[in-house]
Amino acid sequence: MIDLQKNYSINARRMKKSVIRELLKLTAKPDIISFAGGLPAPETFPVEELKDVCVKVLEKYGLKALQYGPTEGVDILKDQLVEWAKRDNVNITKENILMTVASQQGLDLVSKIFIDPSDPIIVGLPTYLGGLSAFNAYGANLIGITVDENGLETDKLEIKLEELKKKGEHYKFVYVVPDFQNPTGTTMPEDRRKKLIELSQKYNFIILEDSPYRELRFEGKEPPSILSLDTTGNVISLHTFSKILAPGLRLGWIIAHKDIIDKLVVAKQSTDLCTPPITQYIAAEYMSRGLLEKRIEETNILYKKKKDMMIEYLEKYMPKHDEISWTNPEGGLFLWVVLPKNFDTEAMFQEAIDEKVAYIVGSAFDAYGKSKNCMRLNFSFANENVMEEGMKRLAKVIEKKL
Amino acid sequence: MIDLQKNYSINARRMKKSVIRELLKLTAKPDIISFAGGLPAPETFPVEELKDVCVKVLEKYGLKALQYGPTEGVDILKDQLVEWAKRDNVNITKENILMTVASQQGLDLVSKIFIDPSDPIIVGLPTYLGGLSAFNAYGANLIGITVDENGLETDKLEIKLEELKKKGEHYKFVYVVPDFQNPTGTTMPEDRRKKLIELSQKYNFIILEDSPYRELRFEGKEPPSILSLDTTGNVISLHTFSKILAPGLRLGWIIAHKDIIDKLVVAKQSTDLCTPPITQYIAAEYMSRGLLEKRIEETNILYKKKKDMMIEYLEKYMPKHDEISWTNPEGGLFLWVVLPKNFDTEAMFQEAIDEKVAYIVGSAFDAYGKSKNCMRLNFSFANENVMEEGMKRLAKVIEKKL
Repeated sequence: MIDLQKNYSINARRMKKSVIRELLKLTAKPDIISFAGGLPAPETFPVEELKDVCVKVLEKYGLKALQYGPTEGVDILKDQLVEWAKRDNVNITKENILMTVASQQGLDLVSKIFIDPSDPIIVGLPTYLGGLSAFNAYGANLIGITVDENGLETDKLEIKLEELKKKGEHYKFVYVVPDFQNPTGTTMPEDRRKKLIELSQKYNFIILEDSPYRELRFEGKEPPSILSLDTTGNVISLHTFSKILAPGLRLGWIIAHKDIIDKLVVAKQSTDLCTPPITQYIAAEYMSRGLLEKRIEETNILYKKKKDMMIEYLEKYMPKHDEISWTNPEGGLFLWVVLPKNFDTEAMFQEAIDEKVAYIVGSAFDAYGKSKNCMRLNFSFANENVMEEGMKRLAKVIEKKL
Repeated sequence: MIDLQKNYSINARRMKKSVIRELLKLTAKPDIISFAGGLPAPETFPVEELKDVCVKVLEKYGLKALQYGPTEGVDILKDQLVEWAKRDNVNITKENILMTVASQQGLDLVSKIFIDPSDPIIVGLPTYLGGLSAFNAYGANLIGITVDENGLETDKLEIKLEELKKKGEHYKFVYVVPDFQNPTGTTMPEDRRKKLIELSQKYNFIILEDSPYRELRFEGKEPPSILSLDTTGNVISLHTFSKILAPGLRLGWIIAHKDIIDKLVVAKQSTDLCTPPITQYIAAEYMSRGLLEKRIEETNILYKKKKDMMIEYLEKYMPKHDEISWTNPEGGLFLWVVLPKNFDTEAMFQEAIDEKVAYIVGSAFDAYGKSKNCMRLNFSFANENVMEEGMKRLAKVIEKKL
């Protein structure tokens, strides 16, 4: 066999097996209570509704759903998504939409058309690890800006942008998850969103708004989406059915200026020709029946209940300590626990597994590999009747380390 | 808005809108008889069978089919594909398989892990244009080796490899479509396949065997697949359900050495996390019922009929001329027409459209933009009752140019 290491591309040589993925394998044992993965609650999957939807799709659109489709996406679904965007006061046409194999492909395609090796890309500290891996796969030079309880700190971003400008660095985009951020669960308020747009105009960069959880707000007031505040065409916005319908469809969409969509379409064509038409017709039929709104409402009732339970048990069982805190998100799937500075959640992970409880280590979300004293907890997936026991176990592991 | 041209990656700046795609838009008018696209015959799509399969999948595997799945692919489908490979005397395990969003994603992922900008990649002249665009998207330096009636000319390949070796060029792989090649319809005989493997060992390169049409043999004797002849682990083999079941599923698989699959899995994870589990369960259920063999048999009966018709009408209507010839494939979807040297099928295209018939220009498949006197004709898609009229129109356009 040829020498693979010698033959891999420079970017591929840099690609590492995801630590998370290896950790997640450990959490797959049946007796482990896992707050690790980012999985939606399976009880929200509309199995019965989808049976009927699938049969109807094959009846109504069979030959189209089974044939190659346009790279841009299937028109009747894009029509629905044009209407859907109006919920956010976003007025677009079909030409502003590209259907993708869920948001992760959105991240990949945007990276493909913008990132050259060593390009600075600005991300939250911490941020979604799938974003980090997509940017890394193209050799990005990741620059982190800290995230506080109100999301990305735009003041610090401004200082960094000025510094980069002086160095003549050509950064391409700033990546944000403004609503119920993965991993912290924090939401950027309107003023920071406006500030970010102002900065994008002043410093000439794209804002990549990753928005998988926005519809999953179960309390509090919704700030406008960054896309809805933009007037320049500098915002690329990623959306997905993964958290509001079912991740197994692997179906998402990009909203952006037509010129950017055009380039993304060319990139997508060489990547996979088109997103599966069959899943697009399924989503279109599902939406046309008005089922998606109902599904989201029911999911939010469940997730609020689960989040409240997790907060209750954190308060009840976690050791009382000045340096232990957690976020209390108004939506989404995750919250973020900060432990005392000397904690190392990587080192502690095996002990957690021994106690049969799992989380994701904070460092996985940190572009600089820090945040070692933090962990992400998912509240959407674990069954309600094991949540208390899981939190007891986790608290015990932490207690021992204090 | 930011200056997009300044911000696009170097590879993205090089990406061009597909000429074909623009041409295909012209061919979408209802009164045009199109031999252009590479579409399977819609009458082969098992709409009724799939209704039942979809309902059963949601019943049996609903919560798994709708959840995130493993990046490698769904086990019960990979089990089926391990068995399927035995038809080709290929003995593999699940660890040798990665499920993909059809073959085009296979081409993209292989490119992603192997191609650095300017790397020489060796391709047939002509070859599948989706291969060319995938390699180009990573900045490959395409090197063409001519294809004759027996596929890629391995003698010429050897000369080129020796030449590259002397220059110290580090080529990464040789791309071949050995069975019923797109666009020529030619098949490599066993001796050339063996020669290719011998060369891969001598000159240390990966053979990328793209095999979407292999099962669509309706006459003649099948040579062994390149993968089945390999003993070194140098062969990566791409497969798809697009031509044997339905392209709308966008479902394919890569077979390769476990180490290569491992790297492809890492690359795929940052690309789209996983192939849609729902389409994988659909294919698994379909295969488990033994329906795929029957589907392929029926498709081959239809395609043989259509190919025979096309050959009959070519013989009947095409101008008799020493320099006009066409291939007569034993399977697949395409044949290749060579016209006199001075013909330019690009220039002639508008005239064909005026006569309401369409083909794909030869240059689209040529890494050097040549083959201008050639065209690809698809015989799988056009309805049987328009094929004669379509051929008359095409012959008329050519006649006028002689």
